Formats: sequence, structure tokens, C-alpha cells
Amino acid sequence: MKTVAVRLPSVELDRSYLIYFDADSGAEERFADELARRAPSKAIGLVTDESVAGLHWPRYDAVLAARGFRVVTVVVPDGEGAKTLERAEAVCEGWARAGLDRKSLVVALGGGVVGDLGGFCASIFLRGVPYVQVPTTLLSQVDSSVGGKTGVNLPSGKNLAGSFHQPLFVYADLTTLFTLPEREIASGLAELVKHAVIADEALLARLEAEAETARVGDPGLLSELVARSCEIKAQVVSADEREVAPDQPGGGRARLNFGHTVGHAIESSWASHPDSLRHGEAIALGMIAAARVGTRLGIGDPTLEARLTALLPRLGLPVNLDERLDAKVLERVGVDKKRAGDRVNFVIVDRIGSTVLRPVETARLPEILLRAKTG
Amino acid sequence: MKTVAVRLPSVELDRSYLIYFDADSGAEERFADELARRAPSKAIGLVTDESVAGLHWPRYDAVLAARGFRVVTVVVPDGEGAKTLERAEAVCEGWARAGLDRKSLVVALGGGVVGDLGGFCASIFLRGVPYVQVPTTLLSQVDSSVGGKTGVNLPSGKNLAGSFHQPLFVYADLTTLFTLPEREIASGLAELVKHAVIADEALLARLEAEAETARVGDPGLLSELVARSCEIKAQVVSADEREVAPDQPGGGRARLNFGHTVGHAIESSWASHPDSLRHGEAIALGMIAAARVGTRLGIGDPTLEARLTALLPRLGLPVNLDERLDAKVLERVGVDKKRAGDRVNFVIVDRIGSTVLRPVETARLPEILLRAKTG
Repeated sequence: MKTVAVRLPSVELDRSYLIYFDADSGAEERFADELARRAPSKAIGLVTDESVAGLHWPRYDAVLAARGFRVVTVVVPDGEGAKTLERAEAVCEGWARAGLDRKSLVVALGGGVVGDLGGFCASIFLRGVPYVQVPTTLLSQVDSSVGGKTGVNLPSGKNLAGSFHQPLFVYADLTTLFTLPEREIASGLAELVKHAVIADEALLARLEAEAETARVGDPGLLSELVARSCEIKAQVVSADEREVAPDQPGGGRARLNFGHTVGHAIESSWASHPDSLRHGEAIALGMIAAARVGTRLGIGDPTLEARLTALLPRLGLPVNLDERLDAKVLERVGVDKKRAGDRVNFVIVDRIGSTVLRPVETARLPEILLRAKTG
Repeated sequence: MKTVAVRLPSVELDRSYLIYFDADSGAEERFADELARRAPSKAIGLVTDESVAGLHWPRYDAVLAARGFRVVTVVVPDGEGAKTLERAEAVCEGWARAGLDRKSLVVALGGGVVGDLGGFCASIFLRGVPYVQVPTTLLSQVDSSVGGKTGVNLPSGKNLAGSFHQPLFVYADLTTLFTLPEREIASGLAELVKHAVIADEALLARLEAEAETARVGDPGLLSELVARSCEIKAQVVSADEREVAPDQPGGGRARLNFGHTVGHAIESSWASHPDSLRHGEAIALGMIAAARVGTRLGIGDPTLEARLTALLPRLGLPVNLDERLDAKVLERVGVDKKRAGDRVNFVIVDRIGSTVLRPVETARLPEILLRAKTG
């Protein structure tokens, strides 16, 4: 039998990038200057959602036009429902029809949904064009601006399709936070708490000291806290970009899933309920669940649940885990994307700032979590 | 303004891979043995089309089952119409619903469409799982088994969305060629001629010497010719995996587009006509067009058009370029994915075995090609 070896040199373009945190007015001007320096051509495929198109797109479009960019804007509906392959096709088709070519650059202007969808479209359009993220919500500034994960949902679950596609740069415009509802600020703060708990007790202490200032969205404080939070995530991601090293100390990139195993299940299980939760609110409850699993397994930091229960409400976040933890939620934990066979990986905080990864049999989950509930 | 640097080490897993050319009966057994050695788990997501599901899937499914694999098969309709994002969603959802996880492996069993779609689904399912290609047509064995290009079509055109995703290995089962219609064999031979013309005059001479034996699908001869053809493509792809180096001698990976600039336009323009062309047939005409453009620009090998016109009909391929070259085709050349701004890149064979890349203004194309037509 004949064989042919296809040798692919392990040469990669430098995909390191900068995240800018700009808390001053006129951020869009400085963004456009940076884009003018970096864009391979004057053609821009911009994706945004209906809310952001009304709130922030006009000033971004104006500064880009002033610098001679030809901007092809595709507006998608607000909310998680836009993260589908059907919508991705509409976005790519809009760019193709307007004649965007391989030298075009994609700008994703919006929150997490726009970033996930826009980044995914950039990764598949003409087999991949560069993209720049302009996160306009606290949650997306804290969380999705680092890591290069893009994705859409499948009928079976969230983020089940996607890619790893690193942005050229990220420009977090913190002046957009003034237009965010209080619950959205709180939702972003939940991921900030997560990064503190898994990697930096000093950051947690600072949040505990200045919770009320953070909660009202103070741009000065938040640009510092968010930058520190992104540093933490960047360190984790740099060491394990593709989440392939769960065996490394602390669980590799997987440690970022702290609070997400139960949190995602709560979020999706309650999604169609009138009393649905925002992502960060569900993660707040998921962190409490993970803290309980840790103490039940005898390896978790025994102070964690109490510190979370004291801090989260001061940030506008819920702590009523027991009310949200029903049979439907427990069943959903079992179909989590992060399962390996019949076990689910839990990120356990063994002491604040440090994690271990522990697989838990899905069959044992109801017992562990429900015993915790009554315990 | 605060900035955070996200440093991504340029560490890549070894993505080099082997292509096996197996011309003996029982190829599926040897394939399954190799898969058993390489698969990360016993879970397989298999994608195939209706024809191949009838012809070859049963023996593949049987040998995989015999080795303890759990195979989740999704069957897509035959033909190019299956290469859509909607179909990609159905494939991924089928795998998700059956509980495939990140340790699953995708097998694409079929021709070019199944390879492109299956590879694309593997690249996005759970943000990417490994995949293995089992090409069952000559065209896909010659062409799409090397290079890692996956893709789907958009309403605006072919392969406008996709990814680069290298297979774990490729297993070309040449015994499948016995079930292929004559026109499909011919279509595969067109890509073989292309690789000879751009890189290896000796291969072209061999095709000229044994055209009739190749045309009837002789497995012994074809396994040699196809392996040599894949070697050529592998060399080109290794040097320029992502088609980012058109400036390197010969045009980098772009040289593989020889005959495709006009060929794609003819293929898509005539697609809905009763007298439509197979991919290789359109590429045969596209190669003649590219030969003409070369001589008109004064840089092409002056013997090329005559050698192609003599060889192609002996392989069962058309040469009636003038009949297919209408205004609609010329307009489509202008919207080719490989355009850069208002110019289209033509791969010109300056002497057989050697190429140069030459941008041609789209506005000049009718004049060049139509003058050629009457000349």
C-alpha cells in the first residue's frame, strides 16, 4: 500500500494580542486610529445587535467613515437567540454580497452574543478573516474578550458549535457601561468574582472592600478590576489555549469553568421561565454549588461558601441556590458539554486562589447536591 | 488607558498526517485497525451521503462495530446541495443528541462534498474534534484529501464559508472506484492533469503515455498516479498551508488554483443547465482558458494549450471552451473568491511544471478571453 506523508510545519503567525481598557470619552476615535494602523484594507464587515446599533454604532460608524473605511454592517436581533448557524449564514452572506474579500476585517461591536457570533463568522468567512472585538457590556469585557472562544448554539445546547479564533485586538470601551442596566453590571461582576476566587485572593478582598462602588459601575474602579480580571484569564488561557491540558496543576483552562457546571444548567433550565436568570446571576449560584460540592468532597475551601454568600448580594447577585436547584437542573448537569463519558468535571477551589479538577459521576450528583441542599 | 497583553505561545500540536492508498479488497479492515490505534475513544461521528450509504457504508459500519466502536451515522443528501450551514447544523445536532463528546472522532466517508461538509462539522463541533477522511471518489482522493480545506457554500457562491482543519489521517480506498461512473473517473483525472501541469512534466508525460488505461480506472496505475499527485499537492500545501504566501516563487498554495478561476465560473454558471458540468470537466475547460490567458499575456508556455487539447479528450474530458464561455461566465469570474479588490489572480504556467501568479484586472477579462475566443 502506498502512503504519502503530508508534513505541516508547526509555524504559526503571532496571535498574541492586546486588550485596551478605555474609560474616557472619545474612545471610538482612539479605537478607529488603532484600526487604521492594523487593518489589512479599508473593507470592514461589522456585526452588531439592535440595541447597540441604536446606542453606540452611530459614533463608531462615523469615526470609521471619517478614516475612509467602507463598513458593511449586519445587525442581528438582541439576545442569545441570534447565536445560530442560520444567523451566521445571514451574516456571512451579507458580507459576501457586499463584496468583502480576504483582506477584509471583521469588527464585533456588542456584548457576548455579538462577540461569539461575530468571532465565529470571522473564523469561517472565506475560511477565516481577522477580527477585532469591541465589547460593550461588562460581562463581555471581563469574560469573552480573552480566550478566542467563538460559538453558536445548537438545538441541544449552548456553544455546542464554534471555533478558537484569536482577535487582532480587543477594545473595551468602558463608557458604554453607562448605558447598561444594573442587572447587566451585576452579571459582569459575577465573572470578576470567579476570576478572583480561582486565582487572586487580593482581588477578592478588594471586591469585598469596594463592593458598593463596583456595583454602581464606577468606570475608574471597574477599568482597574476588569483589567486585573483579564490578566488572570489571559494567564490561564496562555498556558492552555485549547483547553487540552486539564491535567496541569489547577486544571488548565478548565479552571475557568468554576461555577459553570451547575451555573449553565440553571441558566438554560430556567431560560424560558418568567423569572429567568442572566448568565452572571446563574454563575453566582453555580459558584455556591461548586463551593458546596467541594466541602462535601472534603477538599474545598471551608470559608468559600460563606464569603460568596456575603459578597454576592452586595454586588446585586442572587444566592438562593436551593430555590433554583430542581430535578430538571440536575439532569441538565449530566448533559454538560464538559462531561467526559459518564462523569462531569467540577472545578473545586481547594483554597481561595487555587483550584483542582475533580470528576464526579453524574449518577452521584443528585445525592451530593441534594444532600447539600438539606444539609 | 490600561492594556493587557494576551500572550499565546506559538505551540501547535503536530498536524502532519499520512494518506493511505489501498487498492486491495478488505481495505475497510485495515482502515478500522488504523482507526482503533488512533481514536481517542470508542465514539465515532460518521457522516456520509445517500449513495455511499448504500454502496460502502455497510462494510465500514460492520468492521467498526466489530472493533467495539459506537458509530453515530448521519446521512446527508447526495450532491453539492448538502454543503450548507443548515445541513452542518443538522449533522452537529445529530452528533450532540447522540451524546458525542470532545473525545469523539469524526469519519467522513464519501466524495468531496462529504469531505468538505464532514471536515467542516468536525472543525466546529464542540469547537473542534479530530477527523479522518475516507475519500471514495477519484476526485476527492486526488484533490481534497490534501490540504485541510473544509467548507460549505453560501447563497452567493461556493466554499465561501469554511475552515482549515487537518485530518488525523486519510484512507483512500481505491476499490471504491469500481462503483464510480465514467464521468466521475474523468473528473478526478482533470485534477491529476492539473497537478502534473503545474509541477511535474514527467507525470504529464506518463498520463499522455497511458491515458486510456487511466481512463478506465485501472486501480494499479491509479494508485501510483494519485499518490504522486497527492505528493505534489502536499509539497505545495506544506510550504503555504493557509494560502497566505502568494508572493513565494510560483504563487504558493495559490498555484493549485490553476484552471479554477474560469473553471469555477463555468461550473457554477452552468450548474442549473441540463447540460451541466462536473467539477473536473469545468476545470478541464478552465485549464484551457488559463493556458490562453498565459499566451495572450506573453508569459505562458506556448505548447500548453495544444497538449491539453490533445490529452483531455483521451481522458474523457471536454475541451469545448468557446461554447461554454458566455457573458454570464465572464461576469462570474469577477466575483471569484480569489479576487483581491478589482483584480483576479490567474495562475499562469510559464513552462510545464512551473507557475507564476499574475493579477488581471476584471475589467480587462472580457477583452482578453473573448479576443482569445475569436483568435
